[in-house]
Amino acid sequence: MLARALERCARRRAREAISRASRDARASTRASSSSSRAGTSNGEPAAPVVRTPIPGPASRRAVEALSAHADVGSIRYFVDVDASRGNYVVDADGNAVLDLYAHIASLPVGYNHEKMLAAMRDEANVGILAHRPALGNNPPIGWDDRVARTLMRVAPKGLTRATTMACGACANEHAMKAVFISAANARRGGREISEEEKVSCLTNQAPGSPGFKVLSFDGAFHGRTAACLSLTHTKWIHKLDFPTFDWPSCPFPKLKYPLDKFERENAEEEARCLAEVEKALTRDRDVVAVIVEPMQAEGGDNHASADFFRKLRALTKRENVRMIVDEVQTGCGSSGTFWAHEAWGLEHPPDIVTFSKKMQIAGFYAAADLAPELPYRIFNTWMGDPAKLIQLEVVLDCIEEHHLLDVVKSAGETLLNGLRELQEKYPSILANARGVGTLVAIDCDTSARRDALLHALLQKGVDIGGCGSATIRARPGLLFTSAHAGVFLERFERVLAAEM
Amino acid sequence: MLARALERCARRRAREAISRASRDARASTRASSSSSRAGTSNGEPAAPVVRTPIPGPASRRAVEALSAHADVGSIRYFVDVDASRGNYVVDADGNAVLDLYAHIASLPVGYNHEKMLAAMRDEANVGILAHRPALGNNPPIGWDDRVARTLMRVAPKGLTRATTMACGACANEHAMKAVFISAANARRGGREISEEEKVSCLTNQAPGSPGFKVLSFDGAFHGRTAACLSLTHTKWIHKLDFPTFDWPSCPFPKLKYPLDKFERENAEEEARCLAEVEKALTRDRDVVAVIVEPMQAEGGDNHASADFFRKLRALTKRENVRMIVDEVQTGCGSSGTFWAHEAWGLEHPPDIVTFSKKMQIAGFYAAADLAPELPYRIFNTWMGDPAKLIQLEVVLDCIEEHHLLDVVKSAGETLLNGLRELQEKYPSILANARGVGTLVAIDCDTSARRDALLHALLQKGVDIGGCGSATIRARPGLLFTSAHAGVFLERFERVLAAEM
Repeated sequence: MLARALERCARRRAREAISRASRDARASTRASSSSSRAGTSNGEPAAPVVRTPIPGPASRRAVEALSAHADVGSIRYFVDVDASRGNYVVDADGNAVLDLYAHIASLPVGYNHEKMLAAMRDEANVGILAHRPALGNNPPIGWDDRVARTLMRVAPKGLTRATTMACGACANEHAMKAVFISAANARRGGREISEEEKVSCLTNQAPGSPGFKVLSFDGAFHGRTAACLSLTHTKWIHKLDFPTFDWPSCPFPKLKYPLDKFERENAEEEARCLAEVEKALTRDRDVVAVIVEPMQAEGGDNHASADFFRKLRALTKRENVRMIVDEVQTGCGSSGTFWAHEAWGLEHPPDIVTFSKKMQIAGFYAAADLAPELPYRIFNTWMGDPAKLIQLEVVLDCIEEHHLLDVVKSAGETLLNGLRELQEKYPSILANARGVGTLVAIDCDTSARRDALLHALLQKGVDIGGCGSATIRARPGLLFTSAHAGVFLERFERVLAAEM
Repeated sequence: MLARALERCARRRAREAISRASRDARASTRASSSSSRAGTSNGEPAAPVVRTPIPGPASRRAVEALSAHADVGSIRYFVDVDASRGNYVVDADGNAVLDLYAHIASLPVGYNHEKMLAAMRDEANVGILAHRPALGNNPPIGWDDRVARTLMRVAPKGLTRATTMACGACANEHAMKAVFISAANARRGGREISEEEKVSCLTNQAPGSPGFKVLSFDGAFHGRTAACLSLTHTKWIHKLDFPTFDWPSCPFPKLKYPLDKFERENAEEEARCLAEVEKALTRDRDVVAVIVEPMQAEGGDNHASADFFRKLRALTKRENVRMIVDEVQTGCGSSGTFWAHEAWGLEHPPDIVTFSKKMQIAGFYAAADLAPELPYRIFNTWMGDPAKLIQLEVVLDCIEEHHLLDVVKSAGETLLNGLRELQEKYPSILANARGVGTLVAIDCDTSARRDALLHALLQKGVDIGGCGSATIRARPGLLFTSAHAGVFLERFERVLAAEM
């Protein structure tokens, strides 16, 4: 119902969006003042400046040099970090590009934010920056306070414990381990760990190494280490040739847009997917958790309704399996709420929420009943890096002081309305504009078209990425405003016009 | 032969070691001058200063505070990073402790090394410190030079390519993926990737998700993510309840000490283990790689001879499987050579060498024929962190300028000779003193004794860790000198005397 009302409202406003967008683009010379209200560092350019093809000769030379000793096939261009400002990345050739790619959605408050630079220059932080401690053994004094001030300040409701790691894959790997320990304890039903369990696990044999499984969704992406890869079902390039666990997956809803036109079909589609999950859980009692992204990002920006997630949560509760919400890409504000799952109105919180990317540090929040009883069960040498909590504190301060969740909502609305108008204007090219916060996407008619549009946009000074097979998705930082959205939309319309 | 000669020589010198050690301890008031020759920052205390039980009340309060939202069972004490100097860690209670634990062997050049602090304060590095880029997509300008100046400057002979990651587990996970791609390509024999492969891998099924295996050794530790855990065979606490791949392991040599007394037995033991590896490789053609530590660290500081590793390399070559050397703990100088495997005199280099810990950044070196043909095969969002290469460069500069490999050799010799003398003096408690560089260890008669000695040493201001079931192992940083070894040996003798 809410979705339908929003769609109707959005539709009315869509007609005004493009004209507003070009107004915004014209107003982008004034963007630095509006950006600075949103906490952008001074000196952000008023508009993209393109001097060379991108990547230009300097980036190409650097790629060539690096190719002598590293894989370079995925490098897009080299970044002049010091010259970049706010939402504008400056590349090695001096091109200033509006950045809706943002280091695979991991750049939280743009380039050279004055608070971030100040934190790095703060003499009080030099000791933390210069030493990477074994946090699980010998944390620096103040670590307890720092965790309270940062990770616990934004802990998802109902999740009282945090474990830090160095990257999103390790966050998911260790989150699953917390679930496995809990499931095994439940099976043991209070009895002591047996000698047979202790011995058999050392050679990867049951009962010590059990056949526990985690259920994921078709199209999901949860990382690239072995257990994470077993949950990932995006593209063959991510998975081919790698041994994985034979863990099950279920269909993720394929919603039809606009949502208000397909309300019944979409509800049926979600019910079909939930029925598949229920079947999988009852069929195989080794499945001890379900992992889900609030929005399948890498898989193509696939959304489901809050109702779907509420029912999924109810189902996992009923079947007594854990629910892990992977907020590696959706967390830290981009959805317009700090955690995307906040918007679902869950009766029971998820058991675990994992994070990384814009949080700068990775890890997972867990319910109190998932805390391992024994030490060294969830552990590694570094367990993240306290230097990243210094950065996280800056990010959280910026979000609060500059009301960045409001900025995200407003920028996201401009983006989405603008894309809706463009898809009405170019229906042979664009469809299915969708999104939440600035996590906004639109589908192209073909994969080749998508790639051509992304390339053309980059040459016009806008960096935006793709996902799924033919989707363009915006993934800007938290300082991205409606004015920036206007710059993007205006250039997007130009490259679309050139396609016709 | 070399081993026997070294043993004889060591034995002769062992008699002098303890007396030299106490001389060194007395001379430790002069340690700051000798330390400063070795590049230690000024201000290192002359000897441990113990004010409270360790952990003291301030550490205990911090543990209590943190326990509200994190697992704290593995925390030893909190560190006052700013007060710590060189080889002396200062804890939250102001105790200055000689650090042979060094953040699980990951602290390279001690605390507050002036060059490390200078690098963190260098305005030229602020941009790198303040932004964690997606290195695989958009590295910062200069990244190519920085990789050349750091990682490639110390690349193992024959390995021309480096891939960076954020931690040791991810290093091993992705190193294995490089091997799997190569093995699958070999099986395809030049034909195109089939549709069946592309589709089947998405649901974790063969042929796209193959049954490839990696062979490891009993007692090995290679990390705690799923594929790494499948290679780890140390303690049940690391593995119990976690699903793993049913990959094979073979016995690692259990050498008898002193080596010169058990030359024949040890040779037979190594031949037995190699025969088991050969059997495992010929029995199962899905085994496409062998992974081995130059010294099994977590597993109990278990060594094998250079001859064993040469024969293992020859065997992997003959059976056409890859050899991965896990130098996460042994790399970066602690063995007295930069990479421990340098001491083996291999005819063919390993296919892959993985690293982390003292290198500050993690990752793997690989032979050129292991470079994936396609992009995005070995990839994740961050692929490490360029801030850590700034630190690595400081470490490598220190090693060169202060000849730290020589310092390591000399300190290691003092350590080992001192431990040999102590085991002669306390034969009912100590046995099997062994080591290479400062990677030195000794076994206690029981696990309880080991734990009691470690605790007593900590109360005397020396932090040293355990491994295996009853082993004490030194794992200091690269600035640890013979004088520091003397301080440790002198206090170790005091706690041993108190045990009698």
